[in-house]
Amino acid sequence: MCRWLAYSGTPVHLEEMLYKPANSLIVQSLHSQLGVETTNGDGFGVGWYGDGPTPAVFKSVEPAWNDRNLREIAAHVRSGLVFAHIRASTGTPVQQTNCHPFRHGRWLWMHNGSIAGFHDIKRELVLAIDPVLYPDVEGSTDSETFFFLALTMGLEDDPVGGVERAVGFIEHTGRAHDIEHPIQMTVAASDGEKIWAFRYSSERKSRSLFYSTDVATLRAQHPDNPILLAVSDETRLVVSEPLGDLQGAWNEVPESSYGVIQEGQDVLAPFSPRPPT
Amino acid sequence: MCRWLAYSGTPVHLEEMLYKPANSLIVQSLHSQLGVETTNGDGFGVGWYGDGPTPAVFKSVEPAWNDRNLREIAAHVRSGLVFAHIRASTGTPVQQTNCHPFRHGRWLWMHNGSIAGFHDIKRELVLAIDPVLYPDVEGSTDSETFFFLALTMGLEDDPVGGVERAVGFIEHTGRAHDIEHPIQMTVAASDGEKIWAFRYSSERKSRSLFYSTDVATLRAQHPDNPILLAVSDETRLVVSEPLGDLQGAWNEVPESSYGVIQEGQDVLAPFSPRPPT
Amino acid sequence: MCRWLAYSGTPVHLEEMLYKPANSLIVQSLHSQLGVETTNGDGFGVGWYGDGPTPAVFKSVEPAWNDRNLREIAAHVRSGLVFAHIRASTGTPVQQTNCHPFRHGRWLWMHNGSIAGFHDIKRELVLAIDPVLYPDVEGSTDSETFFFLALTMGLEDDPVGGVERAVGFIEHTGRAHDIEHPIQMTVAASDGEKIWAFRYSSERKSRSLFYSTDVATLRAQHPDNPILLAVSDETRLVVSEPLGDLQGAWNEVPESSYGVIQEGQDVLAPFSPRPPT
Amino acid sequence: MCRWLAYSGTPVHLEEMLYKPANSLIVQSLHSQLGVETTNGDGFGVGWYGDGPTPAVFKSVEPAWNDRNLREIAAHVRSGLVFAHIRASTGTPVQQTNCHPFRHGRWLWMHNGSIAGFHDIKRELVLAIDPVLYPDVEGSTDSETFFFLALTMGLEDDPVGGVERAVGFIEHTGRAHDIEHPIQMTVAASDGEKIWAFRYSSERKSRSLFYSTDVATLRAQHPDNPILLAVSDETRLVVSEPLGDLQGAWNEVPESSYGVIQEGQDVLAPFSPRPPT
Repeated sequence: MCRWLAYSGTPVHLEEMLYKPANSLIVQSLHSQLGVETTNGDGFGVGWYGDGPTPAVFKSVEPAWNDRNLREIAAHVRSGLVFAHIRASTGTPVQQTNCHPFRHGRWLWMHNGSIAGFHDIKRELVLAIDPVLYPDVEGSTDSETFFFLALTMGLEDDPVGGVERAVGFIEHTGRAHDIEHPIQMTVAASDGEKIWAFRYSSERKSRSLFYSTDVATLRAQHPDNPILLAVSDETRLVVSEPLGDLQGAWNEVPESSYGVIQEGQDVLAPFSPRPPT
Repeated sequence: MCRWLAYSGTPVHLEEMLYKPANSLIVQSLHSQLGVETTNGDGFGVGWYGDGPTPAVFKSVEPAWNDRNLREIAAHVRSGLVFAHIRASTGTPVQQTNCHPFRHGRWLWMHNGSIAGFHDIKRELVLAIDPVLYPDVEGSTDSETFFFLALTMGLEDDPVGGVERAVGFIEHTGRAHDIEHPIQMTVAASDGEKIWAFRYSSERKSRSLFYSTDVATLRAQHPDNPILLAVSDETRLVVSEPLGDLQGAWNEVPESSYGVIQEGQDVLAPFSPRPPT
Repeated sequence: MCRWLAYSGTPVHLEEMLYKPANSLIVQSLHSQLGVETTNGDGFGVGWYGDGPTPAVFKSVEPAWNDRNLREIAAHVRSGLVFAHIRASTGTPVQQTNCHPFRHGRWLWMHNGSIAGFHDIKRELVLAIDPVLYPDVEGSTDSETFFFLALTMGLEDDPVGGVERAVGFIEHTGRAHDIEHPIQMTVAASDGEKIWAFRYSSERKSRSLFYSTDVATLRAQHPDNPILLAVSDETRLVVSEPLGDLQGAWNEVPESSYGVIQEGQDVLAPFSPRPPT
Repeated sequence: MCRWLAYSGTPVHLEEMLYKPANSLIVQSLHSQLGVETTNGDGFGVGWYGDGPTPAVFKSVEPAWNDRNLREIAAHVRSGLVFAHIRASTGTPVQQTNCHPFRHGRWLWMHNGSIAGFHDIKRELVLAIDPVLYPDVEGSTDSETFFFLALTMGLEDDPVGGVERAVGFIEHTGRAHDIEHPIQMTVAASDGEKIWAFRYSSERKSRSLFYSTDVATLRAQHPDNPILLAVSDETRLVVSEPLGDLQGAWNEVPESSYGVIQEGQDVLAPFSPRPPT
């Protein structure tokens, strides 16, 4: 089981979220508390939006806890929109092109979970990818195939609709192969402005997902916390597992839901796969 | 441009062919004399047949000249049928799953050259792979796609026919996309008993390929050469570039030809792509 | 905490001990049951004696559970004397030159444990290495320094004495720096004929070490076990953690002891560090 | 032979110097025009000063031309003081801890060249390193030993004197071992404010080193060059090999000289090793 984190808010050094919290993503990679697999040593990736036309992506197949370059970058790069992902492979090879987040233009995508029976239905799913997009698929994972299906089905114009259609198509294809529960997922996607986060599984027992309480509320409860004083009211984290034990800081994303982190009021709404018509 | 070597004969340590010759494959990887690209530092692979049901494959994305594990294995593993390949990427990622030789069951496959316009015609080629074989494609190269097309078109039962049909199909597909010269190739394939080696290109200017003179003839010419005394009459090498400067040792495989290294009389015959009917 | 295994006996494929047992070393690397650190993902190494003048060593900084080359080699290489080690770094960099087993001529050495305060006393320890041997130190670990101290102090002629003197010197040096418990160790060493295994710690709470019951005895207890029928009476394993749950198969090496695996009667005797005189 | 580049001036994306010039460092790594070794595929490193207390260092043992992470970082990180180095090993292992630039506190150091007979005199050199600094040596190269000797002999307070004393000591030690020409070097060092660049060799046939003409002069000669319009008058490059063919842009550092790149007037002066007294 993978672990991931999405951050939006006041630009900070990546190490603030990757290394410093008590239950940081790096610590989780060694001893996940809520995950199915206890070790996430099958590669990792970090994506961040900076001053370039596309986000940066740094990926490695070394365990994150050993990677000296990650530590260097985390101490020197600041960003206000960061994705980080630590992988526990569900079977596909451990190589950079299989590490999350995946990138397409301005978009980043990361996934925790799997498509059941992927080995058997991969060809059908890949065939449904827009032929124009197909040559840009670089790796061999279910997660990247899922991303390209969502792109094919409208992610860039209608993110929620694109994901709902992709999940509907995956469920439809899986069930045609007698797969009872075709998909298990938490997903984060961003265009550099907003973050969309999804929690869903065909069997309605989805992997954990949490979002942080709004900063103004937390600051009122913990008036002495220096981090809360340093970050803006708009700052928000979405994570597979809570990063620390600050009382009141973490809220579970409900089953079959999605959230949108954006300027102004965030959104939390039900997620409904849309089967192909 | 990649470099490769195929060996059949008296079992020897891999280092005899990989490190010891004056113009060994490792030396070639640093300073190729006949290649287009001067450096082959984009990964390598070695395959050998031993006592297991399938051949062993050792692959790495480190430059071959630095790889300590390759040196260890080469000094300790003996085999009578060895493939070795050093890669210069023509664009696809440098990762283990893109290193040659590729394996399927008892078969090994390696390729020097490229499919022109692969990015654009990849989807059509991949669609032609037998759906039963499709899930076993692990990497993203033109060379592996070519292997799976040959498997789809009969490689295991009729090796020459399988390759001729795959090349015919690739040329047919490429030309439908206005690609003038769709394929450039030297290829080696083996089932553990015989080696098939192919030299062909759509423009009839194929990359170099050489086979060694038969040992009995060489031994008569060089009666004092210790290696020639140590190996059997059946021993034969096929190489992208001659490995040393032994007078009379190397013969060019003619343009548009294939050879078969086997017990008894070897074969050298014309190669003719078979377009789809 | 590292994990290791030493095998002596009937030549077998490495995979028989690395992958096939229920609690194999690879499984232990993900979820060690007896270790301090739960994950051993900081590199690994395998050494084996074959037909060459020195043993082969294969090392990698990838987690062992992901390494495709290890799986290939394990399925194709047979040996009658094998060392395998999985590392959990205690601070020094994760790089091939820091992976065990270390080699010097015919000798292999691997270590589980650490030298306390190594950062502070390293220079003094390194100065005590024979200047002739010094240039062969390749990495930066306490374990390799310990090996070269043992070589300096007679390992090759008197293995037990060499290790006892090295440990005495390390304890003497550490205590001069007010280090209460200078060394924690299980060690295996071999010259290709015998295996010496040591269990010791300055505080007399040494890391676990087990040796297998002699095969004749086990075979009488488990007359239907196919592995026991396949291996010779002389076959023996020494391991950090039992590899399976065969009743009666594993015996703890006592605190402050060493064993010798050799043709004929094995040895088990007390281990006593010898301080410098 | 290694290649390196030191940049000081207007903050730019690293890719401006690493990838974009016609004869960029990455291009040089594949086909060096002035070097002894034609390929520099034995690892690389980039160091840059940013907003942290110490400079960032990114190192990899992959060939630089393949490293996707380097390309990402180069496109997203800006700095006004950058070191970049591409390694061709002269014998020591290819591992991150042997890649340049080396760092100590605020200081960066990189070296092209070698200490002759290093294997034999390493111990004597290492013994001369300040015992307080000794534990911070991480790798096994002559270049890092040289750095720590310079630190021991005053680099931080008197950079030129520190290097002159270190070189004097290395020559003294080498000659005591009958080494005719103990050192070959171009070196760059920085404290984050200034850059010191040295060109020297015991045989007075030093490896090439060039510095860029001052920007105001170049701008007058090439009034339409957009890069020259974009960078400040203080911008300066020091390189092993010219990065492009802009007429008048490159000046050779004379034999046995050093330069200082700093705010205001730069310095060019003779370099004289100082033997131990």
